[in-house]
Amino acid sequence: MGRVTVRRPVVRIAAAGSRTRPDSLAAEEPMEIRVNGRALSVTMRTPGHDVELAHGFLLTEGVVADRDQVATARYCDSPGPDGRNTYNVLDVMLAPGVAPPDTSVERNFYTTSSCGVCGKAALDSVRLRTDHPPENDPVQLTAGTVARLPDLLRDAQRVFDSTGGLHAAGLFDDTGRALVVREDVGRHNAVDKVLGWALLDRRIPLSGCVLMVSGRASFELVQKAAMAGVPALCAVSAPSSLAADLAEEQGMTLVGFLRGESMNIYTRADRIVNDIT
Amino acid sequence: MGRVTVRRPVVRIAAAGSRTRPDSLAAEEPMEIRVNGRALSVTMRTPGHDVELAHGFLLTEGVVADRDQVATARYCDSPGPDGRNTYNVLDVMLAPGVAPPDTSVERNFYTTSSCGVCGKAALDSVRLRTDHPPENDPVQLTAGTVARLPDLLRDAQRVFDSTGGLHAAGLFDDTGRALVVREDVGRHNAVDKVLGWALLDRRIPLSGCVLMVSGRASFELVQKAAMAGVPALCAVSAPSSLAADLAEEQGMTLVGFLRGESMNIYTRADRIVNDIT
Repeated sequence: MGRVTVRRPVVRIAAAGSRTRPDSLAAEEPMEIRVNGRALSVTMRTPGHDVELAHGFLLTEGVVADRDQVATARYCDSPGPDGRNTYNVLDVMLAPGVAPPDTSVERNFYTTSSCGVCGKAALDSVRLRTDHPPENDPVQLTAGTVARLPDLLRDAQRVFDSTGGLHAAGLFDDTGRALVVREDVGRHNAVDKVLGWALLDRRIPLSGCVLMVSGRASFELVQKAAMAGVPALCAVSAPSSLAADLAEEQGMTLVGFLRGESMNIYTRADRIVNDIT
Repeated sequence: MGRVTVRRPVVRIAAAGSRTRPDSLAAEEPMEIRVNGRALSVTMRTPGHDVELAHGFLLTEGVVADRDQVATARYCDSPGPDGRNTYNVLDVMLAPGVAPPDTSVERNFYTTSSCGVCGKAALDSVRLRTDHPPENDPVQLTAGTVARLPDLLRDAQRVFDSTGGLHAAGLFDDTGRALVVREDVGRHNAVDKVLGWALLDRRIPLSGCVLMVSGRASFELVQKAAMAGVPALCAVSAPSSLAADLAEEQGMTLVGFLRGESMNIYTRADRIVNDIT
């Protein structure tokens, strides 16, 4: 796409002096995902792998479970101010018989003014049911393999060195072999691109795989991993409380603070074989 | 609130050995914001300062411009599974005459199947018009003051040391004095809490102020700052391309890669007085 980074001038002030020089920034542009002609979502993403992103988004939102449920996915012919296609609108047509997502906020969020269950409703509105709970996935990972994942992820991040502004997500097998790595200004988009790739490659559920993400692990990322049947999610930094709660509920192994040879295992530590100490 | 962090057991593997110990995780819970009885949004946030969060969200989404436009903002009586109030639903009633936000996705996102303008529509759907473009704000900041902001922000992050999992946003005056600092698992929520505080304190537009955020600067954060009339946004890490584009368009000073005494100034460098070199 040629739009993963954008060059622009920057004034740099440092002890050595001040100067103006060109700098590379991670590209961020809105992408509208349409389903059967209706807008479902606008996400701010780094252009590239947009078809994977849309597939991953539809998978992790529970709209589709199989690539055959998507009939076509293609850019809308959407010219920008300069008359050229912006490639920022992706039109998805679902296969016959596949129910389109309900795009009414009313349905998704509105609960009655009788508030008896509204706290639960708030949580339920963001929680989805996976067809592939990873609970019984028998995968075993050595701590040594898990400890190498951040380096393996960084090695695969070609863009990282030039912008310092991109998140990454990578899918690895139980020996640490990278299956796919994707980057984005948004961590959730990087994960959707990875999982969309897996859907297109007919690899769902992702039994025996590890999803490694830069930065933190939120509820949203655990949920996306659960929707794809991923048995282990590893993050460079800290998980949130709800991320750990959901991982426990789903039987997913959640690892955080993955630095050097140390790591914190929050849930399902039985899948990690300690070969470090 | 007592829910900023949550304790849970973790298995820690390190060169020194493996052991199970309690660990503090940043609390993440869903909060539903209702306006005039209808759900507007569910955001995953760290509990605390929820009324500020709701005010900031409504300000930066263009729903209200003044605290008097909010009649009441209070927790709904929403019991969880244990029968206790979850404090995860916030009911906002707008003052008479204030137009409620349109909660239909159709209105917000749906564009016709005639795609002549749909690329533009995708961007327009996420771009808001501010009443307080910071373009003509005459504030001047010394590079030395700007360079100190990350340390000042970290000093104010009481929680950071215990979880390592929280983002922060802080509002400072042109001498580097902290006006308010807020934390959250989501950077956008931390910013909304800060700007909601400012709205409640009748400080909008935030002329002469600097907003400092941990991590990166995205389009969304620049937009939130612009909606509150903030003339300068500083981030520890990289901005995205669209963040820099919007800052330029709004006449906002955007600083990134703020590390030690060095920094990159992406837009409106004329507001920064170089007293470092």
